[in-house]
Amino acid sequence: MTINRRWTLARRPDGQVVAEDFAPVDAPFVAPALREGEILVRNRMFAIAPTIRNWLGASGQRQRGTIAIGDTIAGMAGCEVVASRHDRWPAGARLIAMARWEDWSVIAPDAAAVPAFDLPAGMDFAQALGPLSLNSLTAYFGMRDVGRVAAGETVLVSGAAGSVGSVACQIARIAGARAVGIAGGADKCAWLREACGVDAVIDYRAEDVAARLAELCPGGIDLFFDNVGGAILDAAVDRMAAHGRIVLCGQIAAYDREGTAPGPRDMMKLVYGRIRMEGFVVGDFVDRADEARAALAGWLASGELKVRVDLRHGFAALPGAFVDLFAGRNAGTLIVAAE
Amino acid sequence: MTINRRWTLARRPDGQVVAEDFAPVDAPFVAPALREGEILVRNRMFAIAPTIRNWLGASGQRQRGTIAIGDTIAGMAGCEVVASRHDRWPAGARLIAMARWEDWSVIAPDAAAVPAFDLPAGMDFAQALGPLSLNSLTAYFGMRDVGRVAAGETVLVSGAAGSVGSVACQIARIAGARAVGIAGGADKCAWLREACGVDAVIDYRAEDVAARLAELCPGGIDLFFDNVGGAILDAAVDRMAAHGRIVLCGQIAAYDREGTAPGPRDMMKLVYGRIRMEGFVVGDFVDRADEARAALAGWLASGELKVRVDLRHGFAALPGAFVDLFAGRNAGTLIVAAE
Repeated sequence: MTINRRWTLARRPDGQVVAEDFAPVDAPFVAPALREGEILVRNRMFAIAPTIRNWLGASGQRQRGTIAIGDTIAGMAGCEVVASRHDRWPAGARLIAMARWEDWSVIAPDAAAVPAFDLPAGMDFAQALGPLSLNSLTAYFGMRDVGRVAAGETVLVSGAAGSVGSVACQIARIAGARAVGIAGGADKCAWLREACGVDAVIDYRAEDVAARLAELCPGGIDLFFDNVGGAILDAAVDRMAAHGRIVLCGQIAAYDREGTAPGPRDMMKLVYGRIRMEGFVVGDFVDRADEARAALAGWLASGELKVRVDLRHGFAALPGAFVDLFAGRNAGTLIVAAE
Repeated sequence: MTINRRWTLARRPDGQVVAEDFAPVDAPFVAPALREGEILVRNRMFAIAPTIRNWLGASGQRQRGTIAIGDTIAGMAGCEVVASRHDRWPAGARLIAMARWEDWSVIAPDAAAVPAFDLPAGMDFAQALGPLSLNSLTAYFGMRDVGRVAAGETVLVSGAAGSVGSVACQIARIAGARAVGIAGGADKCAWLREACGVDAVIDYRAEDVAARLAELCPGGIDLFFDNVGGAILDAAVDRMAAHGRIVLCGQIAAYDREGTAPGPRDMMKLVYGRIRMEGFVVGDFVDRADEARAALAGWLASGELKVRVDLRHGFAALPGAFVDLFAGRNAGTLIVAAE
């Protein structure tokens, strides 16, 4: 008998997410009858994205919690088509799609909130799943369409070593801006400077962020791409240039904690500085996913864009990888190979 | 001997502004030799604007404090030209200009941060000083250029009975939007509904703002013009429509108090809601003051725009009127006639 391994939501996380919030369920696998437009896929590799945390709910009820208790965790995956009633993806095709943390999934690609796409020629799942998946699209649309990055500007990115932040930094650099990143730890900072070509990096664990921002951004910050919030947002608000823009991508400091993500201490600084602060979600841009992926794939091919993948092995490693993401125990975009 | 009466800054306010923060100085008046481009004016009437508070400094050092201790308080005034070396404003002309709290001022209109303008034909200073002065320009540019109000939208204004807020509400209504105002007290609310044609009003002193917002804005708030900040900003953030805009005009809740004006409790609401929040200062728009004044004067003449002037009498009344502004002891735009 074939088994379909699944990771399900055991309970809504109470404070920091822990491995016990997930429960493994082994169910007998019976190939289902597909409806028109559906495909049956074997999930080979899973992207561990921070946004999944929002679907798990709780932590002061602030989270959306769109996954029910007992349901299988959702996420982008590298998939091989086993059976198909969809013209674009016949059996044997390889694609990246919104699937679930299980061995086999039935997917209706045309109804998915995030469009599926073909694994690009010459790339394997480990190469494509991180840099062409939701996190990179978030960086692409957030930096370009919301932030409107322009050549010559000083751009600050928090969470700069993350899979969103590192791509955001590099898109700023590619656009001709001067990119300053904030990350935690010497290793992450060195990687941003040396591999990613980020102009300057602040290690928030070892340095005084406010003092370093004053040094590194003497003319102020034109654009701040914020993944973190909290004290780092406050320090950035103090250094914004007049008419500066703040793109609110996430507030990862608060994703996995009780309570909320408080705003800046002094809103009058936004008034006097004529600062624009704008939240966005990548879902509003997914109809332009092909444009973003083409640009990202081009930069990857030319070597202008670097990504670092933290590849974990084994289906059993999924919850632990997710917990590690919020503990900062990752070195790049976390991907789990099912094996 | 002629005396030039002046109100000077005695000290930087410590917490709430009080009359003792101002000192009267009577100086002998000797008509000065004017330089090219200068005019000598007799100040007949003074506009009491909240923005003056920012020039006084202190309250936790947050304020700008551009007026030095011992200097005369600055502000918009209705002026009669006594002597002139400026072609546009000969002796006898009447204009509204940035002057000081004194009987006579020397003004260089072309160098002023806020352009001076002629008293419109058919209006006296009491009619023009409020509705055509900085507060109305703030409402005009904030609602139209920053907020981009559009017909059919639901627009919320806090501090709605103030001289900025009441004009902002009415500009929203004139633009075809549905205006909801938040003000304190039955009298102010009745005036907004009955005289100003504001569609709905919330009395924050007597009503539960969050509950009333839920009732009055079932489809969410498209545009929030915020003069107040604090708890009212938070309640509005909870009711913003997706892609809503928040115009940060001021945070009057914090102008006159120790400490700062804290931001919303939960920035993730701005992310999920794709909310744009933008600060502005009217100084960025003063080169278009003529456009705004022409529009405002037209609406005043047609009766589409109502203003309420709280006219105080006597030069000695200046500091008390300013203190009353922050204590909410005013019924409309505060203007002091020197007499």
